[in-house]
Amino acid sequence: MRALILSLTLVLILGLGTAHSAPVKTHLPGDLTLEEAQTILTAALHKAKNIGIPMNIALVDAGGNLKIFAREDGAFLGSIDIAKKKAITARFFNMPTSEFGAAAQPGKELFGIEATNDGLVIFGGGELLVRDGVIIGAIGVSGGSVMEDTAVAKAGATALQASSTSFKKSF
Amino acid sequence: MRALILSLTLVLILGLGTAHSAPVKTHLPGDLTLEEAQTILTAALHKAKNIGIPMNIALVDAGGNLKIFAREDGAFLGSIDIAKKKAITARFFNMPTSEFGAAAQPGKELFGIEATNDGLVIFGGGELLVRDGVIIGAIGVSGGSVMEDTAVAKAGATALQASSTSFKKSF
Amino acid sequence: MRALILSLTLVLILGLGTAHSAPVKTHLPGDLTLEEAQTILTAALHKAKNIGIPMNIALVDAGGNLKIFAREDGAFLGSIDIAKKKAITARFFNMPTSEFGAAAQPGKELFGIEATNDGLVIFGGGELLVRDGVIIGAIGVSGGSVMEDTAVAKAGATALQASSTSFKKSF
Amino acid sequence: MRALILSLTLVLILGLGTAHSAPVKTHLPGDLTLEEAQTILTAALHKAKNIGIPMNIALVDAGGNLKIFAREDGAFLGSIDIAKKKAITARFFNMPTSEFGAAAQPGKELFGIEATNDGLVIFGGGELLVRDGVIIGAIGVSGGSVMEDTAVAKAGATALQASSTSFKKSF
Repeated sequence: MRALILSLTLVLILGLGTAHSAPVKTHLPGDLTLEEAQTILTAALHKAKNIGIPMNIALVDAGGNLKIFAREDGAFLGSIDIAKKKAITARFFNMPTSEFGAAAQPGKELFGIEATNDGLVIFGGGELLVRDGVIIGAIGVSGGSVMEDTAVAKAGATALQASSTSFKKSF
Repeated sequence: MRALILSLTLVLILGLGTAHSAPVKTHLPGDLTLEEAQTILTAALHKAKNIGIPMNIALVDAGGNLKIFAREDGAFLGSIDIAKKKAITARFFNMPTSEFGAAAQPGKELFGIEATNDGLVIFGGGELLVRDGVIIGAIGVSGGSVMEDTAVAKAGATALQASSTSFKKSF
Repeated sequence: MRALILSLTLVLILGLGTAHSAPVKTHLPGDLTLEEAQTILTAALHKAKNIGIPMNIALVDAGGNLKIFAREDGAFLGSIDIAKKKAITARFFNMPTSEFGAAAQPGKELFGIEATNDGLVIFGGGELLVRDGVIIGAIGVSGGSVMEDTAVAKAGATALQASSTSFKKSF
Repeated sequence: MRALILSLTLVLILGLGTAHSAPVKTHLPGDLTLEEAQTILTAALHKAKNIGIPMNIALVDAGGNLKIFAREDGAFLGSIDIAKKKAITARFFNMPTSEFGAAAQPGKELFGIEATNDGLVIFGGGELLVRDGVIIGAIGVSGGSVMEDTAVAKAGATALQASSTSFKKSF
């Protein structure tokens, strides 16, 4: 009985919460969608399979928040965090992590920047996700060499542009 | 001479970075602007002065990232973090922190939720920022009683709606 | 020329790395596979769509490390972390988070335990992933009421058992 | 009725809190004021607009605690943390981050120091705030090249000295 009352109370509380937030939009129009994220992830996983090295692949949205993630069997455990941080780094500074990292080498002006933001990644494997000229997130890949990671990240990013083009054509 | 070459190299790197990101939009249209944030902060500080308790006031944008912050002279140092976490909590769950906190009391279903997300706040003082039916961020206030903090946060949130209305009228 | 030597060195280093780890198995036989994780995620997303509340869904493997993650459009940003922590909590203590949470209520012996492990979740929505009587990971779901989150998590966990049964039948 | 008693109790508790702290001063005389912080921020934002690169600007007081912060529209999300850490670094070691960073280069004696204090910044863009020969805080700026960030930080720091001089003249 008590459980029932509790449940009803919870339903009311959550109902109110939902009712309250129902009329407002909870996210900005134009942000990375899950459908797009899945398309990108599938393309990246396909590329990773071709290369033959197990990868961690992470996507963040325009706000830098995790949208989708997958770890292939046998991929480095330490690359879970690196994949996420590559995506975040690319989005946080609006450029591929390879470009960003070039300015963070010893003797270059951003040397040491990786100690900020709870850890950034200053080598390749993070690429921007751009739809119709707007940055809507980023993809980070870790598991192979930097060249391999970058190839997988670019395969993902390119899949968005292709789907974005076909999206426009359908109108 | 070496310094000159270094400078030129840096200018090139940064120039390239800028050139690369120039044609793309770096943020989603419709997000909280600095001008709006300043209007909201000014209204909140005005309310705080009327109440007479020094406050910490923080605003985050739609992605939950800090947009503006101010600490009045004499405000609790411990409230810097609370103000930020109130804004983040409100945005992360799309409701005022008072509503959110109601479901996190002992015996309620979200009891203990404040241990997630590096710390959430489960009492009042965090309010949503809504423009034309879209959540574009949140304001968090800390320094006085929960009632006082909430009053200041609401004064800020209301200032956005007022400016949003006058914005529409001017078209 | 220097760049070429550098490239060759990198290829050698990475090649050696790969060559070195080739003969050893990098993960336990029987751990949650990406294919299973995708099956579970798909079932959970299907259930979430039926319920009509956008969810965050996270799976960890037997080692408690993130295997797959997805956030539906409009799902709470704060639920990214909660979904992950629900999966981790379930796996770390080998029981659903609802059971775990029951022992963490005020007056119960694990009261306060959510402050450990960088934050645990002490309410429902985290379920174990069991294959042939072995815990191979956990699923955590966050976005709706605890009852809704739990329903989605169970839909995912059940999909593993179904696929595990059909897997055995095919032999 | 119960709610009323609860409210009264809260008023008493909070009232006592206020009454208790009323006779003691809660902050050091001479610390950075919000008014000064606003003057400095305005000058820094003005300089940033002249340069034409969106910036993150953070000020900490003598205790190294955040006093004011603003992020211009389109400024790097990753620079929120860097601006704060530049201000903190400058104040924690009582020198501009450029000077501090010079001692943290490879081969120099503070090499690696950026890994302490939850992350320090070892390049320019953090400047001290000095009033009448006393360090009262620091300003950190991030968003452009190091040269641009430094120019904006210095514009802010100079505005304090100017206002400090005119402050003295008025007596």
